[in-house]
Amino acid sequence: MGERLTIALDAMGGDDAPDMVLKGADLALNRFPQIDYLLFGPEPRLHRLLDAMPKLRQRAEVCHTDVVVTGDAKPSVALRTGRHSSMRLAINAVQEGRCAGVVSAGNTGALMAMAKLVLKTLPGIDRPAICSFFPTIRGESVMLDLGANIDCDADNLVQFAVMGEVFSRTVLGLERPTVGLLNVGAEDQKGHEALREASQRLRDAQLPIAFHGFIEGNDIATGTVDVIVTDGFTGNVALKTAEGTVKLFGYALRSSFQSSFLARLGYLFAKPALIKMRRRLDPRRYNGAVFLGLNGIAVKSHGGADALGFANAIGVAVDMALHGFLDTVREEFHRLPPVPGLTPSPAAAQ
Amino acid sequence: MGERLTIALDAMGGDDAPDMVLKGADLALNRFPQIDYLLFGPEPRLHRLLDAMPKLRQRAEVCHTDVVVTGDAKPSVALRTGRHSSMRLAINAVQEGRCAGVVSAGNTGALMAMAKLVLKTLPGIDRPAICSFFPTIRGESVMLDLGANIDCDADNLVQFAVMGEVFSRTVLGLERPTVGLLNVGAEDQKGHEALREASQRLRDAQLPIAFHGFIEGNDIATGTVDVIVTDGFTGNVALKTAEGTVKLFGYALRSSFQSSFLARLGYLFAKPALIKMRRRLDPRRYNGAVFLGLNGIAVKSHGGADALGFANAIGVAVDMALHGFLDTVREEFHRLPPVPGLTPSPAAAQ
Repeated sequence: MGERLTIALDAMGGDDAPDMVLKGADLALNRFPQIDYLLFGPEPRLHRLLDAMPKLRQRAEVCHTDVVVTGDAKPSVALRTGRHSSMRLAINAVQEGRCAGVVSAGNTGALMAMAKLVLKTLPGIDRPAICSFFPTIRGESVMLDLGANIDCDADNLVQFAVMGEVFSRTVLGLERPTVGLLNVGAEDQKGHEALREASQRLRDAQLPIAFHGFIEGNDIATGTVDVIVTDGFTGNVALKTAEGTVKLFGYALRSSFQSSFLARLGYLFAKPALIKMRRRLDPRRYNGAVFLGLNGIAVKSHGGADALGFANAIGVAVDMALHGFLDTVREEFHRLPPVPGLTPSPAAAQ
Repeated sequence: MGERLTIALDAMGGDDAPDMVLKGADLALNRFPQIDYLLFGPEPRLHRLLDAMPKLRQRAEVCHTDVVVTGDAKPSVALRTGRHSSMRLAINAVQEGRCAGVVSAGNTGALMAMAKLVLKTLPGIDRPAICSFFPTIRGESVMLDLGANIDCDADNLVQFAVMGEVFSRTVLGLERPTVGLLNVGAEDQKGHEALREASQRLRDAQLPIAFHGFIEGNDIATGTVDVIVTDGFTGNVALKTAEGTVKLFGYALRSSFQSSFLARLGYLFAKPALIKMRRRLDPRRYNGAVFLGLNGIAVKSHGGADALGFANAIGVAVDMALHGFLDTVREEFHRLPPVPGLTPSPAAAQ
């Protein structure tokens, strides 16, 4: 791990930016001593913050801009007016080869639009997808798309399956990750036409993928497969439904522990174990959604993330760079047999 | 509550039928002393079971049939070959006016197809939806559609909104339930065309509905609205995702309590409170999915339900009958101003 890496940070993205971004960058240095940063944002303000962070100051270079993409800007507007924004300049730094990846907690739609425009998609990929980890009973899985593409056809789903599999293999280090398509039943005739067609292709194509077939919503948290493929609408609803359910459960648990003297006493005894559990399910641990399918590494942190969450998002970008995700996915797409909707070769049109 | 009611039970539907069905029917008598049953299934077998249940035996009449719709039968096949099945005859009893409602834990697709054919849809409703309760931080909400209609247009969604609102008002007794459309963001331009159109109509139409607008997945469990409207694909995935997440959380909680001696001790102290919490989130409490939009009361129990769960499904049918759900929904549809996609009047085509 002697290799050095530079990561571009949009210092002005996120509810608590730039403080949260810089604190997160500082935290990430503990786990990854080999990284340097380019920080994009207003120089005076960032330098003032850096003055209190000597370790980070040594490893960060500030690239000045006063332009910020707001959280509610439409992607088209951000594209037009945000050419000199902290978000856009940070993405440019990846395209120019100055950085190995970019991390932003800013406006998701704007980040996706800019990253797509600047970095372009990988050969064979029509549309990038948002991909993230989450905890399961078996460990952790990845799911995509979480909201980049509201409508997806069979081509998109097949491409997501291949990208998700490579991501899981290279970044999570799984030898032979299993892939499932999210549906309302396991039987072949269930669901939308696009799902049935994608399933057929993933089976027929003899791809070097451990394709499990259809899975249902309850399979997400039980960890039935390592990679869950779905359209951006369904994925977004499923992810947020799970988040809401964890909140409900946490609320019910807290109420229970406060409901009697004995229960409060019980809480005191069980506290260390419960804190360990909370840590395992802590959404900050799973912060960092990757834009898969781009010709470069771009990671989106939750806008409401704190420093710990942002540090984890940086960690995802660093892991992708260290494990050569982009090279592997390019190689895999070259080596794949021609599959309709997957490769741009003439055979793809069959 | 001196009114007597007869409920038709498909004694042969469900994994543990008929034992579970009869035990559930027996349990439901404790809560609803005013009900009688028609039990559809093989007479010798049911009578043998009833011999051990003197209270139920007095209140149940067995209607013999040896034909059973299997759990994996396609709806079209069940329709063709199941004319004399326990499921079909139980539905017929509602259509003939002999019973106030039917409850089955059998094949969902077959039950929906048969109920639609026999009971027909209410005037103004194109397609029935599956509707169910679930716990939230604020109490409980209802969601529809949970899987009857994979693809829904704006008409369907508007109709679901009206039906769900009436259901929540009459059965849950809420005075002015709020209604939300499940989407991937709260902004007007988010989501599918059908969602945007349905939202526009629910706003413009000046319906006597407290329409909240779009909600996101995390709003389901937090209880942002009382009625959640969505297409059957998304609703099914969201419901099952929530179920899986509860399972994950329960698993993590159990592991935590077993992780040390102190934690085990803490569990002993907190046990009564934790049992109360488990009871509150117990899926059996929320068993009983209603087919809304039919000209009759039809409730689907989970196939894997136990007697307690099945008794709750019976309770849903009885509550709908006692609170005059069907009459209210018919009246409401009459009183509604003409809305595109809602009323069959000429004004609907505007």
